[in-house]
Amino acid sequence: MPPRRYAFGRTDEATHPDSIRAALAEFISTFIFVFAGEGSVLGLRKIYTDPLTSASELIVMALANAFALFAAISASINVSGGHVNPAVTFGALLGGRISVVRTIYYWVAQLLGSVVASLLLRFVTVGMRTVGFHVASGVSPAHGLVLEIIMTFGLVYTVYATAIDPKRGSLGTIAPLSIGLLVGANVLVGGPFDGAAMNPARAFGPALLGWRWKHHWTYWVGPLLGGGLAGLVYEYMVIPTEPPLHTHQPLAPEDY
Amino acid sequence: MPPRRYAFGRTDEATHPDSIRAALAEFISTFIFVFAGEGSVLGLRKIYTDPLTSASELIVMALANAFALFAAISASINVSGGHVNPAVTFGALLGGRISVVRTIYYWVAQLLGSVVASLLLRFVTVGMRTVGFHVASGVSPAHGLVLEIIMTFGLVYTVYATAIDPKRGSLGTIAPLSIGLLVGANVLVGGPFDGAAMNPARAFGPALLGWRWKHHWTYWVGPLLGGGLAGLVYEYMVIPTEPPLHTHQPLAPEDY
Amino acid sequence: MPPRRYAFGRTDEATHPDSIRAALAEFISTFIFVFAGEGSVLGLRKIYTDPLTSASELIVMALANAFALFAAISASINVSGGHVNPAVTFGALLGGRISVVRTIYYWVAQLLGSVVASLLLRFVTVGMRTVGFHVASGVSPAHGLVLEIIMTFGLVYTVYATAIDPKRGSLGTIAPLSIGLLVGANVLVGGPFDGAAMNPARAFGPALLGWRWKHHWTYWVGPLLGGGLAGLVYEYMVIPTEPPLHTHQPLAPEDY
Amino acid sequence: MPPRRYAFGRTDEATHPDSIRAALAEFISTFIFVFAGEGSVLGLRKIYTDPLTSASELIVMALANAFALFAAISASINVSGGHVNPAVTFGALLGGRISVVRTIYYWVAQLLGSVVASLLLRFVTVGMRTVGFHVASGVSPAHGLVLEIIMTFGLVYTVYATAIDPKRGSLGTIAPLSIGLLVGANVLVGGPFDGAAMNPARAFGPALLGWRWKHHWTYWVGPLLGGGLAGLVYEYMVIPTEPPLHTHQPLAPEDY
Repeated sequence: MPPRRYAFGRTDEATHPDSIRAALAEFISTFIFVFAGEGSVLGLRKIYTDPLTSASELIVMALANAFALFAAISASINVSGGHVNPAVTFGALLGGRISVVRTIYYWVAQLLGSVVASLLLRFVTVGMRTVGFHVASGVSPAHGLVLEIIMTFGLVYTVYATAIDPKRGSLGTIAPLSIGLLVGANVLVGGPFDGAAMNPARAFGPALLGWRWKHHWTYWVGPLLGGGLAGLVYEYMVIPTEPPLHTHQPLAPEDY
Repeated sequence: MPPRRYAFGRTDEATHPDSIRAALAEFISTFIFVFAGEGSVLGLRKIYTDPLTSASELIVMALANAFALFAAISASINVSGGHVNPAVTFGALLGGRISVVRTIYYWVAQLLGSVVASLLLRFVTVGMRTVGFHVASGVSPAHGLVLEIIMTFGLVYTVYATAIDPKRGSLGTIAPLSIGLLVGANVLVGGPFDGAAMNPARAFGPALLGWRWKHHWTYWVGPLLGGGLAGLVYEYMVIPTEPPLHTHQPLAPEDY
Repeated sequence: MPPRRYAFGRTDEATHPDSIRAALAEFISTFIFVFAGEGSVLGLRKIYTDPLTSASELIVMALANAFALFAAISASINVSGGHVNPAVTFGALLGGRISVVRTIYYWVAQLLGSVVASLLLRFVTVGMRTVGFHVASGVSPAHGLVLEIIMTFGLVYTVYATAIDPKRGSLGTIAPLSIGLLVGANVLVGGPFDGAAMNPARAFGPALLGWRWKHHWTYWVGPLLGGGLAGLVYEYMVIPTEPPLHTHQPLAPEDY
Repeated sequence: MPPRRYAFGRTDEATHPDSIRAALAEFISTFIFVFAGEGSVLGLRKIYTDPLTSASELIVMALANAFALFAAISASINVSGGHVNPAVTFGALLGGRISVVRTIYYWVAQLLGSVVASLLLRFVTVGMRTVGFHVASGVSPAHGLVLEIIMTFGLVYTVYATAIDPKRGSLGTIAPLSIGLLVGANVLVGGPFDGAAMNPARAFGPALLGWRWKHHWTYWVGPLLGGGLAGLVYEYMVIPTEPPLHTHQPLAPEDY
């Protein structure tokens, strides 16, 4: 087991200004993300009377989630690590990359951001009821749960590889884009089956403001299991502990 | 309150060649952005006889705005800071990142860029009347105003975090993309409700050339309030004034 | 002919932890990619009863493949080189950038990733039969073969130029995006003709789980021929062996 | 007027291996771009019997052009400068960034790449006639000409700012993406009016293989005028010749 990496400075962590700033950054970034992700669903309901029935609507939701999540992660990655997702924070916790205190700060901030975004969406849409997520007809909650586990595993694995891995190097520059666009791809896959949340905060605010709790547990248990698993797999199986023998890299300088 | 950061070199700022060049860059970049953003609306009117009624049309507008704004910011970020938006300039002014003189230069350049783009659009479309923005039926101007405030807040917050924050580091490389794609996401959300301008210059040229002023004030007051608020929040609450205790970063070298 | 670049450290390569880690990274990344690429096809079949008939569906498939491949390459490029495609590995083999032992590891990992993704897709879609690839009516397998050769040539050429070329420099940062989005563009081209696989692993898992083998050889022979050709062309014709005389670069410092 | 920057090494430029390699890179990259750009049009004709009538088809063409151009520029930017467009080369020539000899090499390579791509498209589509560009009904060639001038001006201006400007810095990393996505945005604007070529090579191959020459001169004169103008404007008006007084940058270190 690796050393607890967040060890120093822990005693004053709860009140350290950086913890407050990081929580504020998570709050605002989750707000930006949920406002666009859920807002795009409401925008479609403004255009069409019946919910999701076409590929074009699926593209709207995928792009809104992908583009906004990318921007939201960019806007917070230097301050808070750019989690914007309790499942990402949970994966980082299990991998030993973040303390329990900070995890709780982040979760509260992320859920609050989602709730405030949903509240303001109700106002600007002149009272439309937020939609959130539920499993499609013909699909059981168990199938939705496994789908959420799989998609969130890929998401948090990508977060780890591009934004957390100490060897990520210049890859960190495009980390927010990799993560955002993978969520977009997964919305195109999971959308017709279970809506593809991959993020309890993304699901919670709209559920609360729209008061729709059917299958809601699925969007907590699935992402936390998948994200936690990804954190453990990446931290203990992929991060190298000795000098790598990489493909493409081990060229001796005289070869050039 | 932080020191006035633009203090030195101020006496000759109005006539310094760099100010002229920066204004020219803002003019051309706003021209590129508005030409594509408004032009995509006119392109759709060339295909369809009736205005926005489908998700596909929404995607066209979102991508045209997102991709062109990204390129326009890229093309000017090293010369002028890549504002391309009076609300961004206003946020930078309130945060103390730009002088009043330069703010006025930028605003004039941005509005002129939008007007010239709209003028040329009328010509190349063989006289189509530019469309601009108005609040959708069933939505009041007050709702549109709040929507513009919220969306522009997120936009200028992202500008600050990725392009202005002195600690942005390599994040600056993808700043133009984060900003452009967030505008794309917000068009997918706000499009059906109020068109989603988030930018007085984007709204002004088409309003002038199409002579459509209904609700036009909304697209000035909303973005300036939201952008100004974001500048203040980021400058005074998020930018750290002491060494940070970042997540993922505080790993001791010997951990690797 | 260049020296065999992977020469040192070869004797223990098969059992070196880095080889295992690299194979694991290829397995997971190919899993992520195939799950989204093939999953988007099944998502569309959940919405529509009849297969591909519209531009919107084509966009869904193009974006799902592009965005997920981008993320999958990002997530593995620092560990395994980010191949996620037996044809890329084959091009790297012919160019002398990877050993035969590691090539076999990668191929097995990529095919396994695709099979496991297809298996889990059957489960989460409540038993939908994976679709995979076949040549469209009106197009012969020979035409499909040439199309796969051409598209994969472009793909692996881009991989070489952006991710393998020792002179790639900061271009490496956007290599995963270049590769992912080119695949997206090619899906828009080749989709209506042969589905546009450009990747034997992408085709294999869905073929196995859906038990659809018609024209399947096309999606092995085409990509391997095109990818191998690209590796040879780039390695022996494009990689400079003497100091370059680049456009834009040879400016003397005093010009600035 | 700046010094002729390509001055040294000129006598052997025509036969220098780097010139050959650069021309080869332009040939292959233009091939990749035209194959996807024109191929997406033929893919749509395979699906639909009548040409462009919907927003979704416009998105297909915009994304295919944008994504493939991005990859094509990435794949050649380190070898040839990543022009992939005779109008870009012309702008660089007028700005003094490339020699006449190399300009001719590039033009021949770009046109050949387009012709070979169009030839292979005829084969893989089982004989479909390439479509290329023409001005829409209701739009005169003069309007199309001005539209091409404007759009190519923005394109080459962006090329200059992000890929040629000696002060571009880390912006160069996203130059190919800025350029590619701007072309995508412009296809969404100009598509319904004149197809939006912005590139004589993009227009030439399909015109030759489809033998459609109506309005063809428009797609040469417009892009060359717009691109040349952009080169002159950027080179002589925007590139600073003295230390800049940038927005956001002139912060004294002690402010942090």
